[in-house]
Amino acid sequence: MTEKEKLSIVMFSGDLDRALAGFMLAVTGASMGMEVTMFFTFWGLNIIKKNEGGIKSKGLMKKMLNLINRGGSKRLTISKFNMLGMGTWMIKGLMKDVNMPSIDEFIAMAKDMGVKLLACSTSCGIMGVPEGAFRSEVDGIVGAAYFLGEARESKVTLFI
Amino acid sequence: MTEKEKLSIVMFSGDLDRALAGFMLAVTGASMGMEVTMFFTFWGLNIIKKNEGGIKSKGLMKKMLNLINRGGSKRLTISKFNMLGMGTWMIKGLMKDVNMPSIDEFIAMAKDMGVKLLACSTSCGIMGVPEGAFRSEVDGIVGAAYFLGEARESKVTLFI
Amino acid sequence: MTEKEKLSIVMFSGDLDRALAGFMLAVTGASMGMEVTMFFTFWGLNIIKKNEGGIKSKGLMKKMLNLINRGGSKRLTISKFNMLGMGTWMIKGLMKDVNMPSIDEFIAMAKDMGVKLLACSTSCGIMGVPEGAFRSEVDGIVGAAYFLGEARESKVTLFI
Repeated sequence: MTEKEKLSIVMFSGDLDRALAGFMLAVTGASMGMEVTMFFTFWGLNIIKKNEGGIKSKGLMKKMLNLINRGGSKRLTISKFNMLGMGTWMIKGLMKDVNMPSIDEFIAMAKDMGVKLLACSTSCGIMGVPEGAFRSEVDGIVGAAYFLGEARESKVTLFI
Repeated sequence: MTEKEKLSIVMFSGDLDRALAGFMLAVTGASMGMEVTMFFTFWGLNIIKKNEGGIKSKGLMKKMLNLINRGGSKRLTISKFNMLGMGTWMIKGLMKDVNMPSIDEFIAMAKDMGVKLLACSTSCGIMGVPEGAFRSEVDGIVGAAYFLGEARESKVTLFI
Repeated sequence: MTEKEKLSIVMFSGDLDRALAGFMLAVTGASMGMEVTMFFTFWGLNIIKKNEGGIKSKGLMKKMLNLINRGGSKRLTISKFNMLGMGTWMIKGLMKDVNMPSIDEFIAMAKDMGVKLLACSTSCGIMGVPEGAFRSEVDGIVGAAYFLGEARESKVTLFI
Protein backbone atom coordinates (compact mmCIF):
# COMPACT_ATOMS: atom_id res chain seq x y z
CA MET A 1 0.00 0.00 0.00
CA THR A 2 1.44 3.34 -0.99
CA GLU A 3 0.98 6.46 1.05
CA LYS A 4 -1.28 9.22 -0.21
CA GLU A 5 0.30 12.37 -1.57
CA LYS A 6 -0.26 15.35 0.70
CA LEU A 7 -1.47 18.89 0.06
CA SER A 8 -1.08 21.43 2.89
CA ILE A 9 -2.65 24.87 2.81
CA VAL A 10 -2.13 27.79 5.20
CA MET A 11 -5.32 29.84 5.19
CA PHE A 12 -3.96 33.18 6.44
CA SER A 13 -6.42 35.47 4.71
CA GLY A 14 -10.04 35.91 5.73
CA ASP A 15 -11.10 37.38 2.39
CA LEU A 16 -13.95 35.60 0.64
CA ASP A 17 -12.06 35.40 -2.66
CA ARG A 18 -8.97 33.81 -1.13
CA ALA A 19 -11.12 31.47 0.99
CA LEU A 20 -12.83 30.27 -2.20
CA ALA A 21 -9.49 29.69 -3.93
CA GLY A 22 -8.31 27.69 -0.91
CA PHE A 23 -11.38 25.46 -0.75
CA MET A 24 -11.46 25.00 -4.52
CA LEU A 25 -7.88 23.67 -4.39
CA ALA A 26 -8.50 21.62 -1.22
CA VAL A 27 -11.60 19.90 -2.58
CA THR A 28 -10.00 19.33 -5.98
CA GLY A 29 -6.91 17.85 -4.30
CA ALA A 30 -9.07 15.52 -2.20
CA SER A 31 -11.01 14.44 -5.32
CA MET A 32 -7.66 13.54 -6.90
CA GLY A 33 -6.87 11.28 -3.98
CA MET A 34 -4.62 13.66 -2.09
CA GLU A 35 -4.60 13.92 1.70
CA VAL A 36 -5.43 17.55 2.38
CA THR A 37 -4.80 19.66 5.50
CA MET A 38 -6.01 23.25 5.86
CA PHE A 39 -4.38 25.26 8.63
CA PHE A 40 -6.38 28.40 9.47
CA THR A 41 -4.39 31.23 11.02
CA PHE A 42 -4.80 34.96 11.78
CA TRP A 43 -7.64 36.45 9.66
CA GLY A 44 -8.22 32.98 8.23
CA LEU A 45 -9.72 31.95 11.57
CA ASN A 46 -12.77 33.99 10.54
CA ILE A 47 -13.60 31.43 7.86
CA ILE A 48 -14.19 28.65 10.38
CA LYS A 49 -15.87 30.64 13.15
CA LYS A 50 -19.53 29.91 13.84
CA ASN A 51 -21.96 32.28 12.16
CA GLU A 52 -24.31 32.35 15.16
CA GLY A 53 -23.85 33.82 18.63
CA GLY A 54 -21.08 36.08 19.89
CA ILE A 55 -17.49 35.21 20.76
CA LYS A 56 -16.78 35.18 24.46
CA SER A 57 -13.24 36.32 25.16
CA LYS A 58 -11.64 37.80 28.26
CA GLY A 59 -10.13 41.27 28.40
CA LEU A 60 -11.33 44.53 26.89
CA MET A 61 -9.03 44.49 23.84
CA LYS A 62 -9.94 40.93 22.88
CA LYS A 63 -13.64 41.73 23.30
CA MET A 64 -13.20 44.75 21.01
CA LEU A 65 -11.22 42.81 18.41
CA ASN A 66 -13.81 40.04 18.31
CA LEU A 67 -16.53 42.61 17.86
CA ILE A 68 -14.98 44.35 14.85
CA ASN A 69 -13.45 41.12 13.54
CA ARG A 70 -16.47 38.90 14.23
CA GLY A 71 -15.94 36.42 11.40
CA GLY A 72 -18.09 33.49 10.31
CA SER A 73 -18.40 32.15 6.76
CA LYS A 74 -21.38 34.38 5.98
CA ARG A 75 -19.56 37.58 6.99
CA LEU A 76 -16.53 37.22 4.72
CA THR A 77 -16.06 39.95 2.12
CA ILE A 78 -14.00 40.11 -1.07
CA SER A 79 -10.60 41.82 -0.99
CA LYS A 80 -11.35 44.26 -3.81
CA PHE A 81 -14.44 46.16 -4.97
CA ASN A 82 -16.33 45.28 -1.79
CA MET A 83 -17.97 48.71 -1.99
CA LEU A 84 -19.89 48.48 1.29
CA GLY A 85 -20.85 44.90 0.55
CA MET A 86 -22.16 45.36 -2.98
CA GLY A 87 -19.14 43.69 -4.60
CA THR A 88 -19.39 40.74 -2.23
CA TRP A 89 -23.10 40.40 -2.94
CA MET A 90 -22.35 40.47 -6.67
CA ILE A 91 -19.65 37.79 -6.46
CA LYS A 92 -21.98 35.58 -4.39
CA GLY A 93 -24.66 36.02 -7.05
CA LEU A 94 -22.23 35.13 -9.83
CA MET A 95 -21.11 32.05 -7.89
CA LYS A 96 -24.70 30.85 -7.62
CA ASP A 97 -25.20 31.38 -11.36
CA VAL A 98 -22.55 28.77 -12.13
CA ASN A 99 -23.55 26.49 -9.24
CA MET A 100 -20.31 27.21 -7.37
CA PRO A 101 -20.63 26.05 -3.75
CA SER A 102 -20.83 28.65 -0.97
CA ILE A 103 -18.18 28.58 1.76
CA ASP A 104 -20.60 26.64 3.98
CA GLU A 105 -21.12 24.07 1.23
CA PHE A 106 -17.37 23.93 0.57
CA ILE A 107 -16.71 23.23 4.27
CA ALA A 108 -19.27 20.40 4.24
CA MET A 109 -17.80 18.96 1.01
CA ALA A 110 -14.25 19.23 2.35
CA LYS A 111 -15.22 17.36 5.53
CA ASP A 112 -17.01 14.65 3.55
CA MET A 113 -13.90 14.17 1.45
CA GLY A 114 -11.63 13.86 4.49
CA VAL A 115 -9.97 17.29 4.38
CA LYS A 116 -8.58 18.14 7.82
CA LEU A 117 -9.56 21.61 9.12
CA LEU A 118 -7.19 22.88 11.81
CA ALA A 119 -7.00 26.20 13.69
CA CYS A 120 -3.65 27.77 14.66
CA SER A 121 -3.21 27.79 18.44
CA THR A 122 -0.95 30.87 18.49
CA SER A 123 -3.45 32.98 16.55
CA CYS A 124 -6.26 31.80 18.82
CA GLY A 125 -4.17 32.87 21.82
CA ILE A 126 -3.29 36.32 20.48
CA MET A 127 -6.77 37.11 19.20
CA GLY A 128 -8.61 35.58 22.14
CA VAL A 129 -10.64 33.11 20.11
CA PRO A 130 -11.85 30.27 22.38
CA GLU A 131 -12.31 26.74 21.04
CA GLY A 132 -16.08 27.15 21.34
CA ALA A 133 -16.03 29.88 18.70
CA PHE A 134 -15.34 27.38 15.92
CA ARG A 135 -17.89 25.40 13.95
CA SER A 136 -18.23 21.71 14.60
CA GLU A 137 -16.43 20.70 11.39
CA VAL A 138 -13.08 21.95 12.77
CA ASP A 139 -10.88 18.99 13.70
CA GLY A 140 -8.75 20.71 16.32
CA ILE A 141 -6.38 23.46 17.35
CA VAL A 142 -2.68 22.86 16.65
CA GLY A 143 0.61 24.75 16.60
CA ALA A 144 2.90 25.85 13.77
CA ALA A 145 5.15 22.83 14.41
CA TYR A 146 2.28 20.47 13.63
CA PHE A 147 1.62 22.31 10.39
CA LEU A 148 5.28 22.30 9.31
CA GLY A 149 5.42 18.59 10.13
CA GLU A 150 2.61 18.03 7.62
CA ALA A 151 4.06 20.49 5.11
CA ARG A 152 7.43 18.83 4.93
CA GLU A 153 5.78 15.56 3.98
CA SER A 154 3.61 17.31 1.38
CA LYS A 155 3.99 17.35 -2.36
CA VAL A 156 2.37 20.78 -2.49
CA THR A 157 2.21 23.49 0.19
CA LEU A 158 0.43 26.80 -0.34
CA PHE A 159 0.22 29.97 1.74
CA ILE A 160 -3.07 31.72 0.94
CA MET B 1 17.49 12.24 -20.67
CA THR B 2 16.36 13.57 -17.34
CA GLU B 3 13.11 15.38 -16.85
CA LYS B 4 13.13 19.10 -16.23
CA GLU B 5 12.40 20.35 -12.75
CA LYS B 6 9.05 22.12 -12.54
CA LEU B 7 7.97 25.45 -11.06
CA SER B 8 4.23 26.10 -10.73
CA ILE B 9 2.80 29.49 -9.82
CA VAL B 10 -0.80 30.42 -8.98
CA MET B 11 -1.29 34.05 -9.97
CA PHE B 12 -4.28 34.91 -7.79
CA SER B 13 -3.58 38.60 -7.34
CA GLY B 14 -4.05 41.23 -10.02
CA ASP B 15 -1.82 43.79 -8.30
CA LEU B 16 1.05 45.11 -10.41
CA ASP B 17 3.61 44.45 -7.66
CA ARG B 18 2.61 40.82 -7.20
CA ALA B 19 2.40 40.32 -10.98
CA LEU B 20 5.98 41.57 -11.28
CA ALA B 21 7.17 39.23 -8.52
CA GLY B 22 5.45 36.33 -10.28
CA PHE B 23 6.98 37.03 -13.68
CA MET B 24 10.40 37.73 -12.18
CA LEU B 25 10.37 34.26 -10.58
CA ALA B 26 8.85 32.59 -13.66
CA VAL B 27 11.40 34.04 -16.06
CA THR B 28 14.29 33.36 -13.67
CA GLY B 29 13.11 29.78 -13.23
CA ALA B 30 12.91 29.29 -16.99
CA SER B 31 16.41 30.74 -17.42
CA MET B 32 17.64 28.17 -14.89
CA GLY B 33 16.21 25.40 -17.05
CA MET B 34 13.01 24.85 -15.08
CA GLU B 35 9.68 24.05 -16.76
CA VAL B 36 7.39 26.84 -15.60
CA THR B 37 3.58 26.97 -15.49
CA MET B 38 1.64 30.07 -14.46
CA PHE B 39 -2.00 29.52 -13.56
CA PHE B 40 -3.97 32.78 -13.55
CA THR B 41 -7.07 32.80 -11.37
CA PHE B 42 -9.54 35.33 -9.93
CA TRP B 43 -8.04 38.87 -9.98
CA GLY B 44 -4.95 37.39 -11.63
CA LEU B 45 -6.99 36.96 -14.83
CA ASN B 46 -6.64 40.73 -15.25
CA ILE B 47 -2.93 40.33 -15.97
CA ILE B 48 -3.53 38.32 -19.12
CA LYS B 49 -6.59 40.12 -20.47
CA LYS B 50 -6.18 42.11 -23.69
CA ASN B 51 -5.58 45.80 -23.19
CA GLU B 52 -7.72 46.81 -26.17
CA GLY B 53 -11.46 46.55 -26.70
CA GLY B 54 -14.14 45.71 -24.18
CA ILE B 55 -15.05 42.35 -22.66
CA LYS B 56 -18.27 40.89 -23.98
CA SER B 57 -20.04 38.90 -21.29
CA LYS B 58 -23.69 37.94 -20.87
CA GLY B 59 -25.84 39.06 -17.96
CA LEU B 60 -26.03 42.42 -16.21
CA MET B 61 -23.84 41.52 -13.22
CA LYS B 62 -21.05 40.10 -15.38
CA LYS B 63 -21.19 43.16 -17.63
CA MET B 64 -20.89 45.39 -14.54
CA LEU B 65 -18.04 43.37 -13.04
CA ASN B 66 -16.08 43.44 -16.29
CA LEU B 67 -16.58 47.18 -16.46
CA ILE B 68 -15.20 47.97 -12.99
CA ASN B 69 -12.70 45.09 -13.15
CA ARG B 70 -11.62 45.65 -16.77
CA GLY B 71 -8.06 44.37 -16.43
CA GLY B 72 -5.27 44.28 -18.99
CA SER B 73 -1.55 44.53 -18.27
CA LYS B 74 -1.54 48.32 -18.64
CA ARG B 75 -4.35 48.84 -16.12
CA LEU B 76 -2.77 46.99 -13.18
CA THR B 77 -2.06 49.07 -10.08
CA ILE B 78 0.19 48.50 -7.08
CA SER B 79 -1.33 47.15 -3.86
CA LYS B 80 -0.07 50.00 -1.66
CA PHE B 81 0.43 53.73 -2.14
CA ASN B 82 -1.47 53.71 -5.42
CA MET B 83 -2.79 57.18 -4.52
CA LEU B 84 -5.08 57.61 -7.52
CA GLY B 85 -2.46 56.16 -9.81
CA MET B 86 0.51 58.27 -8.73
CA GLY B 87 2.21 55.42 -6.86
CA THR B 88 1.76 53.07 -9.81
CA TRP B 89 3.16 55.69 -12.17
CA MET B 90 6.14 56.15 -9.84
CA ILE B 91 6.89 52.42 -9.63
CA LYS B 92 6.66 52.13 -13.42
CA GLY B 93 9.14 55.00 -13.74
CA LEU B 94 11.51 53.39 -11.23
CA MET B 95 11.26 50.09 -13.13
CA LYS B 96 12.28 51.82 -16.36
CA ASP B 97 15.23 53.46 -14.60
CA VAL B 98 16.76 50.04 -13.90
CA ASN B 99 15.66 48.55 -17.24
CA MET B 100 13.19 46.25 -15.55
CA PRO B 101 10.79 44.81 -18.16
CA SER B 102 7.16 45.95 -18.17
CA ILE B 103 4.43 43.32 -17.73
CA ASP B 104 3.97 43.23 -21.52
CA GLU B 105 7.69 42.62 -21.98
CA PHE B 106 7.67 40.00 -19.21
CA ILE B 107 4.82 38.14 -20.95
CA ALA B 108 6.73 38.16 -24.24
CA MET B 109 9.93 36.97 -22.49
CA ALA B 110 8.07 34.27 -20.60
CA LYS B 111 6.51 32.95 -23.82
CA ASP B 112 9.88 32.98 -25.61
CA MET B 113 11.35 30.95 -22.76
CA GLY B 114 8.57 28.36 -22.87
CA VAL B 115 6.63 29.42 -19.77
CA LYS B 116 3.05 28.11 -20.00
CA LEU B 117 0.35 30.74 -19.34
CA LEU B 118 -2.98 29.19 -18.32
CA ALA B 119 -6.28 30.74 -17.22
CA CYS B 120 -8.46 29.12 -14.55
CA SER B 121 -11.72 27.85 -16.06
CA THR B 122 -13.74 28.22 -12.83
CA SER B 123 -12.76 31.88 -12.40
CA CYS B 124 -13.60 32.55 -16.04
CA GLY B 125 -17.01 30.99 -15.48
CA ILE B 126 -17.81 32.94 -12.31
CA MET B 127 -16.55 36.27 -13.62
CA GLY B 128 -17.92 35.85 -17.13
CA VAL B 129 -14.59 36.22 -18.90
CA PRO B 130 -14.84 34.67 -22.40
CA GLU B 131 -11.82 33.05 -24.05
CA GLY B 132 -11.63 35.95 -26.49
CA ALA B 133 -10.84 38.35 -23.66
CA PHE B 134 -7.32 36.93 -23.26
CA ARG B 135 -4.22 37.97 -25.15
CA SER B 136 -2.82 35.65 -27.78
CA GLU B 137 0.08 34.52 -25.58
CA VAL B 138 -2.29 32.59 -23.27
CA ASP B 139 -1.93 28.85 -23.88
CA GLY B 140 -5.37 27.76 -22.75
CA ILE B 141 -8.06 27.60 -20.08
CA VAL B 142 -7.79 24.73 -17.61
CA GLY B 143 -9.28 23.62 -14.29
CA ALA B 144 -7.85 23.39 -10.78
CA ALA B 145 -7.22 19.65 -11.26
CA TYR B 146 -4.87 20.38 -14.14
CA PHE B 147 -2.98 22.86 -12.00
CA LEU B 148 -2.69 20.48 -9.03
CA GLY B 149 -1.50 17.78 -11.40
CA GLU B 150 1.37 20.07 -12.41
CA ALA B 151 1.97 21.25 -8.84
CA ARG B 152 2.39 17.79 -7.41
CA GLU B 153 5.16 17.10 -9.90
CA SER B 154 6.81 20.44 -9.15
CA LYS B 155 9.89 21.14 -7.08
CA VAL B 156 8.49 24.56 -6.18
CA THR B 157 4.88 25.75 -6.06
CA LEU B 158 3.94 29.32 -5.16
CA PHE B 159 0.59 31.01 -4.51
CA ILE B 160 0.93 34.70 -5.38
CA MET C 1 25.61 12.63 7.85
CA THR C 2 22.26 13.52 6.31
CA GLU C 3 21.51 16.93 4.93
CA LYS C 4 19.08 19.18 6.73
CA GLU C 5 15.63 19.65 5.26
CA LYS C 6 15.12 23.15 3.90
CA LEU C 7 12.35 25.72 4.34
CA SER C 8 12.38 28.76 2.01
CA ILE C 9 10.12 31.75 2.49
CA VAL C 10 9.55 34.72 0.19
CA MET C 11 8.61 37.68 2.35
CA PHE C 12 6.84 39.84 -0.22
CA SER C 13 4.45 41.64 2.11
CA GLY C 14 5.44 44.35 4.55
CA ASP C 15 2.31 43.98 6.66
CA LEU C 16 2.89 43.31 10.35
CA ASP C 17 0.49 40.36 10.40
CA ARG C 18 2.13 38.60 7.45
CA ALA C 19 5.60 39.37 8.85
CA LEU C 20 4.61 37.68 12.12
CA ALA C 21 3.29 34.62 10.29
CA GLY C 22 6.55 34.42 8.34
CA PHE C 23 8.79 34.62 11.41
CA MET C 24 6.59 32.25 13.40
CA LEU C 25 7.02 29.62 10.66
CA ALA C 26 10.73 30.39 10.17
CA VAL C 27 11.56 30.10 13.86
CA THR C 28 9.42 26.99 14.29
CA GLY C 29 11.09 25.40 11.26
CA ALA C 30 14.54 26.16 12.67
CA SER C 31 13.54 24.71 16.06
CA MET C 32 12.54 21.51 14.22
CA GLY C 33 16.02 21.28 12.74
CA MET C 34 15.19 22.73 9.33
CA GLU C 35 17.57 25.01 7.43
CA VAL C 36 15.56 28.18 6.89
CA THR C 37 16.04 30.97 4.34
CA MET C 38 13.93 34.13 4.28
CA PHE C 39 14.07 36.15 1.07
CA PHE C 40 12.73 39.69 1.56
CA THR C 41 11.41 41.38 -1.56
CA PHE C 42 9.33 44.44 -2.51
CA TRP C 43 7.30 45.66 0.51
CA GLY C 44 8.92 42.93 2.57
CA LEU C 45 12.17 44.89 2.48
CA ASN C 46 10.54 47.21 5.02
CA ILE C 47 10.70 44.46 7.65
CA ILE C 48 14.50 44.38 7.63
CA LYS C 49 15.24 48.09 7.21
CA LYS C 50 16.85 49.88 10.16
CA ASN C 51 14.43 51.72 12.38
CA GLU C 52 16.80 54.66 12.93
CA GLY C 53 18.02 57.31 10.51
CA GLY C 54 16.80 58.05 7.02
CA ILE C 55 17.39 56.16 3.79
CA LYS C 56 19.80 57.85 1.42
CA SER C 57 18.85 57.16 -2.18
CA LYS C 58 19.61 59.06 -5.36
CA GLY C 59 16.95 60.62 -7.58
CA LEU C 60 13.79 62.49 -6.66
CA MET C 61 11.36 59.57 -7.13
CA LYS C 62 13.43 57.19 -5.00
CA LYS C 63 13.76 59.84 -2.30
CA MET C 64 9.97 60.30 -2.31
CA LEU C 65 9.27 56.55 -2.26
CA ASN C 66 11.64 56.01 0.66
CA LEU C 67 9.95 58.83 2.52
CA ILE C 68 6.40 57.49 2.23
CA ASN C 69 7.56 53.86 2.38
CA ARG C 70 10.15 54.36 5.14
CA GLY C 71 9.91 50.89 6.67
CA GLY C 72 11.64 49.48 9.74
CA SER C 73 10.26 46.78 12.04
CA LYS C 74 8.63 49.33 14.34
CA ARG C 75 6.71 51.04 11.53
CA LEU C 76 4.93 47.98 10.16
CA THR C 77 1.14 48.04 10.32
CA ILE C 78 -1.49 45.32 10.07
CA SER C 79 -3.24 44.71 6.75
CA LYS C 80 -6.78 45.10 8.13
CA PHE C 81 -8.40 47.27 10.80
CA ASN C 82 -5.30 49.46 11.09
CA MET C 83 -7.60 52.45 11.72
CA LEU C 84 -4.88 55.11 11.81
CA GLY C 85 -2.65 52.87 13.89
CA MET C 86 -5.15 51.83 16.55
CA GLY C 87 -5.56 48.31 15.21
CA THR C 88 -1.80 47.84 15.00
CA TRP C 89 -1.39 49.12 18.56
CA MET C 90 -4.10 46.71 19.70
CA ILE C 91 -2.50 43.69 18.00
CA LYS C 92 0.87 44.61 19.53
CA GLY C 93 -0.76 44.77 22.95
CA LEU C 94 -2.43 41.40 22.45
CA MET C 95 0.90 39.91 21.36
CA LYS C 96 2.55 41.12 24.55
CA ASP C 97 -0.28 39.63 26.62
CA VAL C 98 0.62 36.13 25.41
CA ASN C 99 4.39 36.79 25.43
CA MET C 100 4.57 36.64 21.66
CA PRO C 101 7.90 38.07 20.47
CA SER C 102 7.96 41.42 18.67
CA ILE C 103 9.41 41.55 15.13
CA ASP C 104 12.72 42.77 16.60
CA GLU C 105 12.79 39.83 18.98
CA PHE C 106 11.80 37.44 16.19
CA ILE C 107 14.70 38.72 14.04
CA ALA C 108 17.14 38.17 16.93
CA MET C 109 15.72 34.68 17.60
CA ALA C 110 15.84 33.78 13.92
CA LYS C 111 19.49 34.84 13.67
CA ASP C 112 20.41 32.89 16.81
CA MET C 113 18.80 29.81 15.31
CA GLY C 114 20.69 30.14 12.03
CA VAL C 115 17.88 31.45 9.83
CA LYS C 116 19.36 33.23 6.78
CA LEU C 117 17.91 36.70 6.10
CA LEU C 118 18.41 37.83 2.50
CA ALA C 119 17.26 40.94 0.62
CA CYS C 120 16.23 40.79 -3.04
CA SER C 121 18.69 42.68 -5.25
CA THR C 122 16.14 43.56 -7.95
CA SER C 123 13.73 45.12 -5.44
CA CYS C 124 16.59 47.08 -3.87
CA GLY C 125 17.50 48.37 -7.33
CA ILE C 126 13.96 49.42 -8.28
CA MET C 127 13.15 51.01 -4.95
CA GLY C 128 16.54 52.59 -4.44
CA VAL C 129 17.28 50.90 -1.13
CA PRO C 130 21.06 50.94 -0.50
CA GLU C 131 22.76 48.11 1.43
CA GLY C 132 23.31 50.49 4.36
CA ALA C 133 19.54 50.78 4.89
CA PHE C 134 19.35 47.24 6.27
CA ARG C 135 19.87 46.16 9.85
CA SER C 136 23.03 44.29 10.75
CA GLU C 137 21.26 40.92 11.03
CA VAL C 138 20.72 40.79 7.26
CA ASP C 139 23.10 38.26 5.69
CA GLY C 140 23.27 39.75 2.23
CA ILE C 141 21.59 40.89 -0.97
CA VAL C 142 20.93 38.21 -3.59
CA GLY C 143 18.96 37.72 -6.80
CA ALA C 144 15.88 35.68 -7.65
CA ALA C 145 18.09 32.92 -9.09
CA TYR C 146 19.76 32.42 -5.72
CA PHE C 147 16.34 32.13 -4.08
CA LEU C 148 15.01 29.64 -6.64
CA GLY C 149 18.19 27.62 -6.20
CA GLU C 150 17.37 27.30 -2.50
CA ALA C 151 13.67 26.74 -3.15
CA ARG C 152 14.17 23.84 -5.48
CA GLU C 153 16.15 22.04 -2.81
CA SER C 154 13.51 22.82 -0.19
CA LYS C 155 10.88 20.56 1.30
CA VAL C 156 8.62 23.55 1.86
CA THR C 157 8.52 26.90 0.03
CA LEU C 158 6.09 29.65 0.93
CA PHE C 159 5.25 32.99 -0.68
CA ILE C 160 4.03 35.36 2.03
